[in-house]
Amino acid sequence: MNSTGFMGEDFILSTPIARRLYHDFAAEAPIVDVHNHLPPDEIADDYVWPTITDAWLGGDHYKWRAMRLAGVPEHLVSGPADPWERFEAWAATVPRMIRNPLYVWTHLELKRAFGIDLPLSPATAREIWDEANRQLPDLGARAMLRHFDVQLVATTDDPGSLLEDHARLATMNDAGLRMVPTFRPDAGHALLGEPERWNSWVDTLVAAGDATAITDLASLLDALASSYRRMAAAGCRASDHGLAALPDRPRDPDHADRVVRAAREGQAADDHDREIVLLEIVALAARLAAADDAVLQIHLGPLRNVSPRLMDAVGRDAGADVMGDAGQALGLARFLGDLERADSLPRTVLYNLNPADNALLITMAGAFARPGVPGLVQWGPPWWFNDHEGGMRRHLDDLSQIGQLGGFIGMLTDSRSMLSMTRHELFRRILCDVIGRDVEAGTVPADIDALGQLVRAVSVDNAREFFGFA
Amino acid sequence: MNSTGFMGEDFILSTPIARRLYHDFAAEAPIVDVHNHLPPDEIADDYVWPTITDAWLGGDHYKWRAMRLAGVPEHLVSGPADPWERFEAWAATVPRMIRNPLYVWTHLELKRAFGIDLPLSPATAREIWDEANRQLPDLGARAMLRHFDVQLVATTDDPGSLLEDHARLATMNDAGLRMVPTFRPDAGHALLGEPERWNSWVDTLVAAGDATAITDLASLLDALASSYRRMAAAGCRASDHGLAALPDRPRDPDHADRVVRAAREGQAADDHDREIVLLEIVALAARLAAADDAVLQIHLGPLRNVSPRLMDAVGRDAGADVMGDAGQALGLARFLGDLERADSLPRTVLYNLNPADNALLITMAGAFARPGVPGLVQWGPPWWFNDHEGGMRRHLDDLSQIGQLGGFIGMLTDSRSMLSMTRHELFRRILCDVIGRDVEAGTVPADIDALGQLVRAVSVDNAREFFGFA
Amino acid sequence: MNSTGFMGEDFILSTPIARRLYHDFAAEAPIVDVHNHLPPDEIADDYVWPTITDAWLGGDHYKWRAMRLAGVPEHLVSGPADPWERFEAWAATVPRMIRNPLYVWTHLELKRAFGIDLPLSPATAREIWDEANRQLPDLGARAMLRHFDVQLVATTDDPGSLLEDHARLATMNDAGLRMVPTFRPDAGHALLGEPERWNSWVDTLVAAGDATAITDLASLLDALASSYRRMAAAGCRASDHGLAALPDRPRDPDHADRVVRAAREGQAADDHDREIVLLEIVALAARLAAADDAVLQIHLGPLRNVSPRLMDAVGRDAGADVMGDAGQALGLARFLGDLERADSLPRTVLYNLNPADNALLITMAGAFARPGVPGLVQWGPPWWFNDHEGGMRRHLDDLSQIGQLGGFIGMLTDSRSMLSMTRHELFRRILCDVIGRDVEAGTVPADIDALGQLVRAVSVDNAREFFGFA
Repeated sequence: MNSTGFMGEDFILSTPIARRLYHDFAAEAPIVDVHNHLPPDEIADDYVWPTITDAWLGGDHYKWRAMRLAGVPEHLVSGPADPWERFEAWAATVPRMIRNPLYVWTHLELKRAFGIDLPLSPATAREIWDEANRQLPDLGARAMLRHFDVQLVATTDDPGSLLEDHARLATMNDAGLRMVPTFRPDAGHALLGEPERWNSWVDTLVAAGDATAITDLASLLDALASSYRRMAAAGCRASDHGLAALPDRPRDPDHADRVVRAAREGQAADDHDREIVLLEIVALAARLAAADDAVLQIHLGPLRNVSPRLMDAVGRDAGADVMGDAGQALGLARFLGDLERADSLPRTVLYNLNPADNALLITMAGAFARPGVPGLVQWGPPWWFNDHEGGMRRHLDDLSQIGQLGGFIGMLTDSRSMLSMTRHELFRRILCDVIGRDVEAGTVPADIDALGQLVRAVSVDNAREFFGFA
Repeated sequence: MNSTGFMGEDFILSTPIARRLYHDFAAEAPIVDVHNHLPPDEIADDYVWPTITDAWLGGDHYKWRAMRLAGVPEHLVSGPADPWERFEAWAATVPRMIRNPLYVWTHLELKRAFGIDLPLSPATAREIWDEANRQLPDLGARAMLRHFDVQLVATTDDPGSLLEDHARLATMNDAGLRMVPTFRPDAGHALLGEPERWNSWVDTLVAAGDATAITDLASLLDALASSYRRMAAAGCRASDHGLAALPDRPRDPDHADRVVRAAREGQAADDHDREIVLLEIVALAARLAAADDAVLQIHLGPLRNVSPRLMDAVGRDAGADVMGDAGQALGLARFLGDLERADSLPRTVLYNLNPADNALLITMAGAFARPGVPGLVQWGPPWWFNDHEGGMRRHLDDLSQIGQLGGFIGMLTDSRSMLSMTRHELFRRILCDVIGRDVEAGTVPADIDALGQLVRAVSVDNAREFFGFA
Repeated sequence: MNSTGFMGEDFILSTPIARRLYHDFAAEAPIVDVHNHLPPDEIADDYVWPTITDAWLGGDHYKWRAMRLAGVPEHLVSGPADPWERFEAWAATVPRMIRNPLYVWTHLELKRAFGIDLPLSPATAREIWDEANRQLPDLGARAMLRHFDVQLVATTDDPGSLLEDHARLATMNDAGLRMVPTFRPDAGHALLGEPERWNSWVDTLVAAGDATAITDLASLLDALASSYRRMAAAGCRASDHGLAALPDRPRDPDHADRVVRAAREGQAADDHDREIVLLEIVALAARLAAADDAVLQIHLGPLRNVSPRLMDAVGRDAGADVMGDAGQALGLARFLGDLERADSLPRTVLYNLNPADNALLITMAGAFARPGVPGLVQWGPPWWFNDHEGGMRRHLDDLSQIGQLGGFIGMLTDSRSMLSMTRHELFRRILCDVIGRDVEAGTVPADIDALGQLVRAVSVDNAREFFGFA
């Protein structure tokens, strides 16, 4: 099979320019993964997966969902069946999924991490199982990250976290790898409808030393600011917020204060009240980021846990989330405009789940600027259901044509698994292919050095610079 | 002209793999057309069209709309002008429509049904008219379906239908062709704003023997259930529902009961009340389907009959429908979640008219599952305004990358014409081309047998199995 | 470099058919630019730009936005820095923007207007600056338009305009160039929230002689009708309206009258009241167009001036506009339906800013028709953020597959610059490429003459005929 055969050296790279850009520039660039859900303890512990089933099906709700779509019963999906049986069920699911990113990721992970070239199917399952499991003991979390030339990972962390794993890794002086936290205070508004859960979350802030007592909005925000500063001291350069949409409503701190006080006394908030507090928390994060020249990340669009059956059987984040179609323009324009008016619009990354919002978000990002900062508001990389070849091509098309490719912060994994670092390779191949095709069409000049610099910038330099991971 | 010339043997098939997949697997597969609007009497009668104008312009509002867009006056469009003049007007419209599915369908129908290879235009109109009309007497409805290797058609039927044509065909023992009804109870809510029409529709249920009297919601639902059972006895495996959107509201049977009682007494319902009854009728169909392991089909999105001029001149379904942009996520998530909670979420097919909802619906479908059933909730084939080459490519791209191609139930005609069976050919060519390109790009292995199985499954096997037409 | 090299003779044209269609038909067709914002005085004065910075950065908020996205400080963007410094800053921005239309436009303008073949970058900035500035004195506004074979431009004009520049040019008998106004009465509703600005705008109507006094809705509409007739006498064939969306509300002239009276007395209208007046003004323009067989243009979708910082620093139309996501279907269907019912639905062009509405608007346009008028309601050319190669391909894909390519009115510049006439070339290349690819795929016959006629029609004839610029 030639070099563009299945996962061959040049797969996805359809032109000579694309191949040169990829092999000479993109493949050489290290990885700075600015947003993911890697478990800090696995990295600090240099964790070793017992079996490939643990690596792949331990907590990956993408794969769980795919298996359920194939009709696989739940005990083989999220467990607790025997690891080999679960692997077999996954192997039977894979051939149904050609063109899905899980199909490509699976084979790229086998190839890059284990040197295994076989397409996974029931016929090859046993051989792959044996070989992968044989190699796993040598592939601890940090070895894996080194293998992919990862220089930095930014995890996602609750404000109540003591950041002990981050501290532990920092003291290890593990040459070449930094792990920094990201401040994710969603629980502060998301749990307001369940006062018991919300209050015990608030108490973790006190336990973490971020406050002596939290009784109202002011003390809640002070505690969050204290947590943010602890995180910043550990290298944190960003907050992150997951929202269906930014509500198109004026901020109302007095109202938010009443909601927080009532919740502290055990009263559940309704959606309206929850949103009022949400606005105060995100605005706080924006002020903190602006003061620090750090980054505000907003993930917009999901509707979560829509299957009651799965919620009962497996719980949250089990693979039953969907794209919402709430309006995004008005709330976002109002919120960013208010921040700018108050001189507290920080570097911002907007991620959207519903691709119908792509163009809108690019124009929103392009309406705000700050001299000296290329791309002050970024349209973030293709997220979740958009993280596939078509989604990345559309993303690069939309961004380069409506926005500005040169300043793009590029790819991130958003993953819980070290193996997912292969996603950077996929993205970079597609990036090079997109540019190479335009050179062939005659709309981009064949200036390899200039294009190579741009590829390198989008692959790693822009993200590093934008987040300030110098 | 070579094999990829206009409608040549390999048209649309741009790679060697695509050609093998199409000719060796897709072209061989029979047709099971799980959703259409074929007139049952035409099939039972083995109807013969008098002229090609009757075949093409008798009731096809797609073509009517296209002719009006070309400025053709109404008497040549929907009639009552002379058949040859109407054909001439259609022939003058066709060259304006390259790239439109009507352009491709027209020529594929001429080629496959009549062996005519000429592009239709005013210059060729007379020759094509003569030749097609000459052949028509030999092309009765059932001969046509046999010609396309159609094994089963599922028509769309009002609950009041006596299903006499279906029964008639069944007794004919016409080897190889089954015709089954589909339960479509939309009139039960759609007509509630026009009490006279609604009441006479209700009376057809009584006339059909599905009830002795219908006075309230309970007796209405009982009558519909009785009709559904009659249809099931005739081979029906699905209901179908056409909605702008599923309203995001809690069900309220008591309220629905009041609306039905009032409507029985001649009182028109407003939109809000209509939606309350709608929810009860669709939920009934879901329960019936769940009990039967049959299928609930929901067509989401149209805004109908927006041209008052055309409504006056021609009536409903005349070609003046448009895509709506109502929100779909919340109502759908609520409705499907409620069904699942009540253990009555059946096999479901979601069709959307506005392609901006594609990705959303794929994720919605992927959030619900049942062990043992691949793709319990399906994202249905590209519908109506999406049924063109670009729409099918986008559909296959979106579905394969966000969902799971292996379980897809594939194409259906949704048509009133036997000639439309060619649409399966078009879909299959595109399917093979999409896969073939990815093999060339190196993201799918060139395993012809495995890919051929998948092509065959999507072409016919999955639909047959999903609907239970064993 | 071969002919498909960077901006080579055949750039974008990927098939032999595409090349023949472009060079033999599209390139030969003159330009009729039916909607733009060219300054009438610059054309009447045969204005000469002092430097290439004035030509490019004088008022082009697309480029300003791009420079800000690159982090360029405002004095180099919108001024008032030294022209060479601003040009240098633009030259440094350009290489960051490959694939953006500004990138292609920049180089196509250099090539076609100045014969300069160099990619613009800091390295070439001085040479390009010198050469372009050297040539500028010979490139007055009208010479430029003649160079691009422009036969007609339709500017966009406030109802209070005295149209002196249009009159001046008409008397010059400048062979081959017509400049006609377009009636744009948006201020009549858009300013209602700022009574002082609104009233002084109303007074310009009186000053222009369109009314002796304006006190209520009737006298306001009479004055607008008078202005429209003045414009029609100067060759105007269209009105134009810029709206976030057509509100889905019944018209209410009595309410509108009260709002106008109150505003005349200095009272600010809220959004609701503003919309009520908006409906009356657009309906007036529709009636006037219907009576004249002229054109109603509606631009749907922007959310304007979302950056308070930029609004303070630079003002309106400075590059801080975004796509909105307001619902479009219901309001549009209601408004067009009402017009049709009142027999005053004119030729109409619908433009949308958010590409998520593409398919919807094509179906909306296709639902209305008038015998003898091909494409009575047109889906307009790709607008603003959609005016890039991907946007044009998608536009042609969507239009040809959901609507009817043969009647499409094609491209327009929507620009403030004579140099932008190159956009017609880009569009025509893409049009030819789209068709050429389908000929290769075998879904369009290789009938060069028929295809050439269609290309010519879409390039210029349809627009001329639709707007009645015979």
